[in-house]
Amino acid sequence: MATVYDVTTWTVPGNPGLTAAYDIGAVINSIIADVKAQQTSQASKPGAVIYIPPGDYSLKTRVTVDVSYLTIRGSGHGFTSSSIRYNAGNTSSWHEVNPGGSRVRVENTDGQGEAFRVARGGDPRLSSVTFENFCLDGVSFAPHQNSYLNGKTGILVDTANDAFRVQGMGMVYLEHGLVVRDADALRVSGNFLAECGSCVELVGSGQASAVTDNHLGAGYVGFGLFAEGHAGLLVAANNVFPRGKSLVQLKNCSRSTITANRLHGFYPGLIVFEGACDENLVQGNHLVRQPEPWGPMQPYGNGRDDLFGLVHVRGSGNTITGNHLSYDVPSAQVAPSGATPTIVLVASGSGNFIATNHTRASLPVKTVVLDASTSGSIVVDSGTDEQFVHHGAQHSFRATP
Amino acid sequence: MATVYDVTTWTVPGNPGLTAAYDIGAVINSIIADVKAQQTSQASKPGAVIYIPPGDYSLKTRVTVDVSYLTIRGSGHGFTSSSIRYNAGNTSSWHEVNPGGSRVRVENTDGQGEAFRVARGGDPRLSSVTFENFCLDGVSFAPHQNSYLNGKTGILVDTANDAFRVQGMGMVYLEHGLVVRDADALRVSGNFLAECGSCVELVGSGQASAVTDNHLGAGYVGFGLFAEGHAGLLVAANNVFPRGKSLVQLKNCSRSTITANRLHGFYPGLIVFEGACDENLVQGNHLVRQPEPWGPMQPYGNGRDDLFGLVHVRGSGNTITGNHLSYDVPSAQVAPSGATPTIVLVASGSGNFIATNHTRASLPVKTVVLDASTSGSIVVDSGTDEQFVHHGAQHSFRATP
Amino acid sequence: MATVYDVTTWTVPGNPGLTAAYDIGAVINSIIADVKAQQTSQASKPGAVIYIPPGDYSLKTRVTVDVSYLTIRGSGHGFTSSSIRYNAGNTSSWHEVNPGGSRVRVENTDGQGEAFRVARGGDPRLSSVTFENFCLDGVSFAPHQNSYLNGKTGILVDTANDAFRVQGMGMVYLEHGLVVRDADALRVSGNFLAECGSCVELVGSGQASAVTDNHLGAGYVGFGLFAEGHAGLLVAANNVFPRGKSLVQLKNCSRSTITANRLHGFYPGLIVFEGACDENLVQGNHLVRQPEPWGPMQPYGNGRDDLFGLVHVRGSGNTITGNHLSYDVPSAQVAPSGATPTIVLVASGSGNFIATNHTRASLPVKTVVLDASTSGSIVVDSGTDEQFVHHGAQHSFRATP
Repeated sequence: MATVYDVTTWTVPGNPGLTAAYDIGAVINSIIADVKAQQTSQASKPGAVIYIPPGDYSLKTRVTVDVSYLTIRGSGHGFTSSSIRYNAGNTSSWHEVNPGGSRVRVENTDGQGEAFRVARGGDPRLSSVTFENFCLDGVSFAPHQNSYLNGKTGILVDTANDAFRVQGMGMVYLEHGLVVRDADALRVSGNFLAECGSCVELVGSGQASAVTDNHLGAGYVGFGLFAEGHAGLLVAANNVFPRGKSLVQLKNCSRSTITANRLHGFYPGLIVFEGACDENLVQGNHLVRQPEPWGPMQPYGNGRDDLFGLVHVRGSGNTITGNHLSYDVPSAQVAPSGATPTIVLVASGSGNFIATNHTRASLPVKTVVLDASTSGSIVVDSGTDEQFVHHGAQHSFRATP
Repeated sequence: MATVYDVTTWTVPGNPGLTAAYDIGAVINSIIADVKAQQTSQASKPGAVIYIPPGDYSLKTRVTVDVSYLTIRGSGHGFTSSSIRYNAGNTSSWHEVNPGGSRVRVENTDGQGEAFRVARGGDPRLSSVTFENFCLDGVSFAPHQNSYLNGKTGILVDTANDAFRVQGMGMVYLEHGLVVRDADALRVSGNFLAECGSCVELVGSGQASAVTDNHLGAGYVGFGLFAEGHAGLLVAANNVFPRGKSLVQLKNCSRSTITANRLHGFYPGLIVFEGACDENLVQGNHLVRQPEPWGPMQPYGNGRDDLFGLVHVRGSGNTITGNHLSYDVPSAQVAPSGATPTIVLVASGSGNFIATNHTRASLPVKTVVLDASTSGSIVVDSGTDEQFVHHGAQHSFRATP
Repeated sequence: MATVYDVTTWTVPGNPGLTAAYDIGAVINSIIADVKAQQTSQASKPGAVIYIPPGDYSLKTRVTVDVSYLTIRGSGHGFTSSSIRYNAGNTSSWHEVNPGGSRVRVENTDGQGEAFRVARGGDPRLSSVTFENFCLDGVSFAPHQNSYLNGKTGILVDTANDAFRVQGMGMVYLEHGLVVRDADALRVSGNFLAECGSCVELVGSGQASAVTDNHLGAGYVGFGLFAEGHAGLLVAANNVFPRGKSLVQLKNCSRSTITANRLHGFYPGLIVFEGACDENLVQGNHLVRQPEPWGPMQPYGNGRDDLFGLVHVRGSGNTITGNHLSYDVPSAQVAPSGATPTIVLVASGSGNFIATNHTRASLPVKTVVLDASTSGSIVVDSGTDEQFVHHGAQHSFRATP
């Protein structure tokens, strides 16, 4: 029983002329059908590896992955900046103009929005599916190349899953890069996901997952990383660059941790808690907020003003400590005009602990602001008396000396 | 000289009918014998790569690795939860019931307990052996499936070694997953080691090693990670989940560092120092202690009570800073009954530094307790006066405001 | 169009007798020429993967990489200590004496110093070139094996580049391991670069790059990691061991972050800022300074004395927090003789923030020293009054209680 497939040598039964270059989606679906036909014993379904050599492939048919233990693997995430290219004017003299590596152009003609959909009903949930080291390229945005919109998704995992891995992938010019619903012990690591509306979206619920060691750079319409309903998510050692409406946004997440990341954004709200986020740790991160420096993207923003906070906290019992926060915006670009920008805003909740954070700013700022609805916040060594604003009830404060 | 081997195509000299499906251990031993027969020049022994395609393999004979530069590599760690399956009742309608990927069932019939043993006498010590991306499955525990006991070990490295890598592996239902003696500059990274008695045990001594970016979940009988006699061990960005008698336990380790990990446990003692552990750093970790929520495992524990500490420190000059610690246990489940739980216990030693840690608890706790034998501890911004207990001699304390 | 090449099976047009064993450089250049000949459409140049099986290869001709999306990949970084071997005396009874894996001996006969040079003029800059999992061995140093000098460089990326990856590589006995000019979003991860003059040098300028999860050990002549003109560099979870003139040295870098690393050195200056380094974060690292314990290397040093600082800061607005610093040097070995060693030296700049650092020392030290040229430093919980020295203008200080 062969378990190693190559999309360039597989012959689709009944359609021998179909090539991966023409429709890699149909080819992979045919391979998965073969895996299922070969592996029929409940006791032994080891899965397979599907290899995508470097090359240029169109995907016209959405792939449906409904077997565990499948690895889809290429040799090269193939990222290049399509944003620079599309905004460069005449590129006729360029060496190349498109992404490469094991490059899959997401060009569905089947009415679907996703290149890959992973889903299965029944028990058990799917386990140990791996996507590795190939390129998912959405090719273009509409109605213009700076919109980050095209209705395309690279990978949608749509049912509960365990021990999945997405590693070494490249994604570019997709409205949604990776979307995973109901993840358990997911690993998203070593990827280069950039110039996508959103890069990583973990929706529904999840636990014990890890997003580490990635390069993430979303559009102004979406998220570097969005996670919803997760507990025990570890977000570490990522280099998250602009743009991104938020760089890391947690919604109703608890006991998760954002540590040792580098976060660079062009709008208010680099780390954002939405809903009720409790007992999370934001520790040892480096955050920088600058204005958009690049002409083609200066028309866009995320709609928030500078009172929103570089770090926007909602929920109780969170820990914000050991972070460096740089705010480097000319006063003329502060919104609302004349406002004193907020660095860390505690917008709701009780018992949040904010300690030993260092803010550097190009103009006077409020390093920590406690909204009126908050209570019991503890703020130590995170700014001077003048930099601290408390609208809320009882709290503790010790100024940085 | 071919240096790329495939276990499914290798013919064992003298036993051409032997397949990897029947005994992958004997096949790999035969391949290693061939590597040694081919590479006889002291000046040039580059080693080889042995590939295990996705498939279901039995290992009846222990593999002995006694050459440097050998890579044993599969295509899929193939983890699925055997614990859920064995406790699920009737699984006859399930899609599949076993782990997969490049799955090696550890079923020794040679009287040995290990699937792989790596060892060599003489000089130099073995270098740069790599295990990568396959599954070691112990199949079952005895006398019942929740015992975590079966006498099986996935990989035992039994002599001093340098620059080894264990990466992307899956291990499940082994009493001991990975055991490495006398490691120098070992890398254990990107693995999924779960439902093993112990996941990673670094025994004897070691230096300059790294355990990073893993998913680790041990049984109540053992350790997520145990390290003995190590200096300069880096434990970072791991997602360590229950159960685990301890999640991370250092014994007589010095100048090692546990940072940016997420640690979730069901018993007292998530991070434990045993013996004399000096000048280690525990920084930026997120710890959560909850009671066991799952019926089948509720009969078990690790025998410690809630005075042991979520973090249990023995030794001198350690640094415990910037951690978030959540304690979420109903008062009826606290042991001894009626006790006030301890979060950080300094059980021995002098000059330990505990700063800027934030505890959240479901009931009153002592955030830092200094035992009578300790001296010179410095405790700052890690709890209130009421949360601090000092039985020891001179110490410094500054309450969180 | 085949895009998967193997150096051992490729026939060089016009020179069919040339083997990779004899000159892998010429073979790879021939393969790259074929890639370029095959891929001539500006719209589709996906690149290729060049595979180096385990084996012993000489490189006599420098490789020139001038195409995007090329992966050069082996099966084994093959590190072993040549330093131990060369200082061991009689090794005739040893099992093996050289590095292995996919081992490329850097033995240029073409007058060049580099094994690989990556460079291209015109637009766009090169993207997504990957070096992975092979060994670059400089074989010997001159005039003696402990000099770290031989004029050899493993990989030089010499023009601006985007989204490159260097991962899982081994380098040994090269004067310069990896040198990358003008990097954007580079990833250097999971490598074993040791016994090189310098391991990683990021020169010129750069942004949004990451050096994570590596083992790095340079010679006394160079750097574990050197970075120049970078913004947004993330240095995380590396195990950096001796020797290294500096372990991590930043020159004119801003808004970069050094977190969760383990750093072990034998000379003053483990983390060094050169020039003007602003708004960087040094957080959660474990640093140890010991004297050189090994006879063969005891004649050498880096020329700095113990007033230089384990951490040497130049620039403004930096954050140094949550680090553990061990200084373990007998008083007889302190230089200048009788001096009180400095742990953190702020040598220039304003507004640096130094908080919650814990120093352990074998003799009295100054934990923080502010030079006369500095101003506005904030030093909290990082030593006692006696351990603090301020020659500079206004500053804030709060002693560790």
